[in-house]
Amino acid sequence: MTDTAAQAGELDVLCVGNSIVDVLTQTDDATLEQFGMVKGTMALIDAEQAEALYAHMSPAIETSGGSAGNTAAGLASLDATCAFIGRVRDDQLGDIFTHDIRSIGVEYATPAATDGPPTARCLILITPDAQRTMNTFLGASVNLGPEDIDADLVARAKVTYLEGYLWDRDEAKQAFLRAAALAAANDRTVSLSLSDPFCVDRHRESFREFVSGHVDILFANEDEIMSLYQVDTFDEALQHVRQDCRIAALTRSEKGSVVVAGDEVHVVDAEPVGKVVDTTGAGDQFAAGFLYGYTRGRDLATCARIGGIAAAEVIAHVGPRPQVKLADLVAQKL
Amino acid sequence: MTDTAAQAGELDVLCVGNSIVDVLTQTDDATLEQFGMVKGTMALIDAEQAEALYAHMSPAIETSGGSAGNTAAGLASLDATCAFIGRVRDDQLGDIFTHDIRSIGVEYATPAATDGPPTARCLILITPDAQRTMNTFLGASVNLGPEDIDADLVARAKVTYLEGYLWDRDEAKQAFLRAAALAAANDRTVSLSLSDPFCVDRHRESFREFVSGHVDILFANEDEIMSLYQVDTFDEALQHVRQDCRIAALTRSEKGSVVVAGDEVHVVDAEPVGKVVDTTGAGDQFAAGFLYGYTRGRDLATCARIGGIAAAEVIAHVGPRPQVKLADLVAQKL
Repeated sequence: MTDTAAQAGELDVLCVGNSIVDVLTQTDDATLEQFGMVKGTMALIDAEQAEALYAHMSPAIETSGGSAGNTAAGLASLDATCAFIGRVRDDQLGDIFTHDIRSIGVEYATPAATDGPPTARCLILITPDAQRTMNTFLGASVNLGPEDIDADLVARAKVTYLEGYLWDRDEAKQAFLRAAALAAANDRTVSLSLSDPFCVDRHRESFREFVSGHVDILFANEDEIMSLYQVDTFDEALQHVRQDCRIAALTRSEKGSVVVAGDEVHVVDAEPVGKVVDTTGAGDQFAAGFLYGYTRGRDLATCARIGGIAAAEVIAHVGPRPQVKLADLVAQKL
Repeated sequence: MTDTAAQAGELDVLCVGNSIVDVLTQTDDATLEQFGMVKGTMALIDAEQAEALYAHMSPAIETSGGSAGNTAAGLASLDATCAFIGRVRDDQLGDIFTHDIRSIGVEYATPAATDGPPTARCLILITPDAQRTMNTFLGASVNLGPEDIDADLVARAKVTYLEGYLWDRDEAKQAFLRAAALAAANDRTVSLSLSDPFCVDRHRESFREFVSGHVDILFANEDEIMSLYQVDTFDEALQHVRQDCRIAALTRSEKGSVVVAGDEVHVVDAEPVGKVVDTTGAGDQFAAGFLYGYTRGRDLATCARIGGIAAAEVIAHVGPRPQVKLADLVAQKL
C-alpha cells in the first residue's frame, strides 16, 4: 500500500462499472414485443435507437443507476466504506450521477469527459409482472480505460468489485485486467458480477478465462452461470464453478441463493418479501449485502443472508437503490 | 378563431407556466431549519444557492414538474385536450421535460432557449410529515415573454390557465396580460392559480388587480386567499373573493374545498386518502380535476369533487403527477 493510500484509510469495496442514469417507466408486454425486446434482460443501444425508444416511452422518472453504482449505494447504506470508478460526461445527467453517489459517502473521483458522447442512460421498461427490461446507451461510459483505474484505490480496497457489463468494450476489459492485477499484487480480493446472460454469451471464452484466472468471488444468477458453462441445469453449472473460483454466490430469485467455496456449499432461502414491484437492482443489492458480510469476516451463509435482505428491500419498490438504511434493516432481521 | 386554430381543433385547456424538472429527496425538519426554509412553501433561489443546496441533499429522483405542467398532466390523464406554454433550455433536463409532457399527449411547442441559463429545476425536500418544501431555480423559465403566447392556442382553448408563480417576473407578467387579453377577445375563460402565499405577498396589489379585472376562475388555498385580502380568517377571505371574480375554488387540505360563484356556494368534503406520502402537486391536480369538470359543463360541486379525487391520488405517492389514469379513477368514484 502506498503512503497516500495509507493516509486515506482502508476501503471495504472499490466498485468499477458504467456510470448510468436510469430512466424508468411502466409499460406493457405489447410494447416489449413491438421493439423486439427480451423481457428481463439488458440490450445495448446506440444514440439513435435510444432517441427512437425514448420518443415512444411514457413519462419517466430519472434516478442514478448502473450495476456497480447500485452495489456501491447498497454498501454505503450498510455503512461499508466504498469507492466507485466509472465515467460520466460533464453534462446534467453526469451531475446527477455524481451528486447521488457522492451524497451517500462513496468516494468518486473519475474525471468527467469534456467531449464525446453524453452520460450513459438506461431506458428501463417495467411490466406489470415487476420485470425490468433494460436498454442501455453507454455514452460516456465507453471512455473508461486502464488509465482510470487508480492504483491507490485498488490497493486500499479489501475487495475490488467489477461489473460484467463493462466486458463489452476492449478498453474497459483492459481496465478490468489492470484492476485485477493490481488487486492481486496487493493481496486483495477480486470480485466479478456476470451481469447478464447475453453479456456472457457475447464473451463466453474470455469470461471463463478471467473467472478461472483472476476472480476470487463470482456473482451470477442461474441463467448467467448456465450460460457461462453452456449447460442445461443449475446443478451442472454449480459443479463447474466450484472448480473455477474460490467463492461463487449464485442467486436464484425466489428460490434463494447457493454459495459454493470448494467443498463448502450453502443453500440459503430467499428473504420473504411482500409485493414485488420492480426487480431492478436485485442482483446488485445481493452483491452489496454479500460483500459487506465478507469484508466483516462473516461466514458465507451469513453473507448470503445479508445479500438476500438487501435484495428483498430493493425489489419492493421502484428504483435500483435502497430506500431505507440497510444497516438498520440487517440489524433487525439478522 | 383563426383558420389554423379551427383546423387544429378546440382545446379544453391551455396551461401557461414554468417548465421545471423536480429533484425530489427525503429529509428531516433539522435540514429545513439549517437552510432557513419555511416548510410547505416555495422559495426562489439562484444558480449558486441551487448548487449549494444540491450539494447538501441526499440522493434524489428527477421527474417533470412545474405547477401548470402538473395540471396539464392531470388534464391529459382525464382525457382532456390540452396544450402547454413554458420555456426550457436545449439541455438534458429540457429534453426530459419536453419528452414527458409530449408523451402524455399535451401539445407543447414553445421553442427551447439556445443560450442563457439551463432548464429550471425545483429542489424539493419531503419531510416525514409528507410536506414538501420547494426551492426553485427558475433558469430558462425566466425567458418566457409575451411573444411566446401563441394567439392561436389561446383562441383554441376553452380555458387559459395561468400559474401564479410566473408573476414573479415582469416579462412573464406581460405574457399573462397578453394571454388574458387574447382569451377575453375570443370569449374564452381565464383561470389563475395563486400558487403560494409568499408569491401573493410579493405581488399583492398587482394580483388583486389582475384577479378582479381578468380572472374568471381563481384557484387558491386558505393561506393564499387570506394573504391576498390580508385577512385573518378564511371566511373573511371568502366574502372578499366572491365580489372579485366569477368563480373561486378554494382548497383547504383535509377540510376539502369551498367553491363560490356569486350567490352560489358549495362546501365539498375531501376525498378519503390512505396514507399521505407527499403533498407535492395536490393543488395542481385539484385544478386539473376542477377544470376538466368545468370544460365538460359539470356543475360546480361536481367540478370540486373531481378536483378532490385527482388531488387524493397524487398525495398518496411521491411525485407531482398522477400515476394512474385519472379518467378511470373518476369514472369509478364519481
